[in-house]
Amino acid sequence: MYLMRIGAFGAEKPAARLDDETYVDLSDVVHDFDEAFFGSDGVARIRPLVAERAAAGQVASVGRQRIGAPIARPHQILCIGLNYRDHAAETGQPVPAEPILFTKSPNTLIGPDDDVRIPRGSTKPDWEVELGIVIGRRTSYLDSPEDARAVIAGYLVVNDVSERAFQLERGGQWTKGKSAETFNPAGPWLVTPDEIADVLALDMWLDVNGVRQQTGSTKTMIFNPYVIVHHLSQFMVLEPGDLINTGTPPGVGMGLQPPVWLQPGDVMRLGIEGLGSQCQNVLASR
Amino acid sequence: MYLMRIGAFGAEKPAARLDDETYVDLSDVVHDFDEAFFGSDGVARIRPLVAERAAAGQVASVGRQRIGAPIARPHQILCIGLNYRDHAAETGQPVPAEPILFTKSPNTLIGPDDDVRIPRGSTKPDWEVELGIVIGRRTSYLDSPEDARAVIAGYLVVNDVSERAFQLERGGQWTKGKSAETFNPAGPWLVTPDEIADVLALDMWLDVNGVRQQTGSTKTMIFNPYVIVHHLSQFMVLEPGDLINTGTPPGVGMGLQPPVWLQPGDVMRLGIEGLGSQCQNVLASR
Repeated sequence: MYLMRIGAFGAEKPAARLDDETYVDLSDVVHDFDEAFFGSDGVARIRPLVAERAAAGQVASVGRQRIGAPIARPHQILCIGLNYRDHAAETGQPVPAEPILFTKSPNTLIGPDDDVRIPRGSTKPDWEVELGIVIGRRTSYLDSPEDARAVIAGYLVVNDVSERAFQLERGGQWTKGKSAETFNPAGPWLVTPDEIADVLALDMWLDVNGVRQQTGSTKTMIFNPYVIVHHLSQFMVLEPGDLINTGTPPGVGMGLQPPVWLQPGDVMRLGIEGLGSQCQNVLASR
Repeated sequence: MYLMRIGAFGAEKPAARLDDETYVDLSDVVHDFDEAFFGSDGVARIRPLVAERAAAGQVASVGRQRIGAPIARPHQILCIGLNYRDHAAETGQPVPAEPILFTKSPNTLIGPDDDVRIPRGSTKPDWEVELGIVIGRRTSYLDSPEDARAVIAGYLVVNDVSERAFQLERGGQWTKGKSAETFNPAGPWLVTPDEIADVLALDMWLDVNGVRQQTGSTKTMIFNPYVIVHHLSQFMVLEPGDLINTGTPPGVGMGLQPPVWLQPGDVMRLGIEGLGSQCQNVLASR
């Protein structure tokens, strides 16, 4: 299944995508794709209903409606740093021995085509296409990476927008440079694992103003999604609906010579094979 | 006012404390002390009601009921590191030029007298008595520290329980050592600012097994609560109900020679002048 949320920001309705034009509305049976939904095995519960409604022709058209993030604001957004060998190299840092964890404020979550706003005082805003993981059930102390498969609800595209001066020059931890309003476009869909032939072989890309900046594949991840979820579960309890951004491939602005930073008026387009694509306009600070 | 939540974990009822024995139940008018409550100016709204009920003798007795954290699980728990001059010195780190930000998973929040459980694989669990701030309204880009006064709903005691090996030896960011289950005892009360003569002159203390380990005062904070809230509001949107742990005074286990770590069976008692006290039993990992 391809879960999505359609409608105005803060009033999105849960739906299941059938194709680029049509979807099954689920707002009569699901409050939202949130912690309660994932925590009550909601994905399995709606599966037969979606098939039934699709077969009965109970479908709607996306048309020009806004597409929101495919999940409600999560309990937490966890992020893995330097998780692609080439990206670690471009930042001048060694390949980490275990996953580097940092966090983003959950209220950074926006839809895939919403505007990204440069924060006040920003001098180094940057882009990061990433594979996102959504947790499907309450999880701690997994015995093995293999056990992580059962707790992953699905995958999605995220843009882990970053302010490098805030991240690296303002006090030693990365959160300050990751948490500005609009800094986590997500979607368009949450794709359940059964729809993905091999999550470890998905092409990824990001363009700024039509110029390809990031080209990568989940093949070159250092720590794969199962290793990440297993690892994190040793340090904290993962809640249903939690979002994990798994790191970015090479080609961020910080890695260019000289570095290139986002500017008001820029357009970011990005996507991951099978998970859809995003397009954000970059706005000046308010 | 002194807000508190009474009852079983996950089913706490909102209340206002009158004294050590009695409280006014608010569960018929307030769903919870959560984002919606603070964001709708709930503190001001209940103030006359609490006075009215107290005057009418509509009070209940705490008795042996469990006291929960005085706020619901927040959107985020933000923490300031090395915010007392002497604590920075004991950790061997320089006094920071601006507030160091890290985060804790919101689901670490527990009541003031709940058990603290050592996580699996832990070798260096440690204590930290801290002044907590709860945000009272949606906040970004405050113009000055003075403006932060109007967005602070109140103050409380927190124990920023930490696992130093996870924090410092497992990947470079601190979140891993701060986010284990039960790692954020909070309360017993959320104390509104009008009840506190001078938040910058509150004595703080923490005992382990009856031995005084931390003695401090908010007088020696490097960045005071107004500076912290102003600063954070430049980097992210603070939501109503967000919790900020403002750093710990000297005397953590890591700073002793040789270091001392928490053990199963230990008892932590801690408090802040005017904000109440906590008592946690330390349990072995599960």
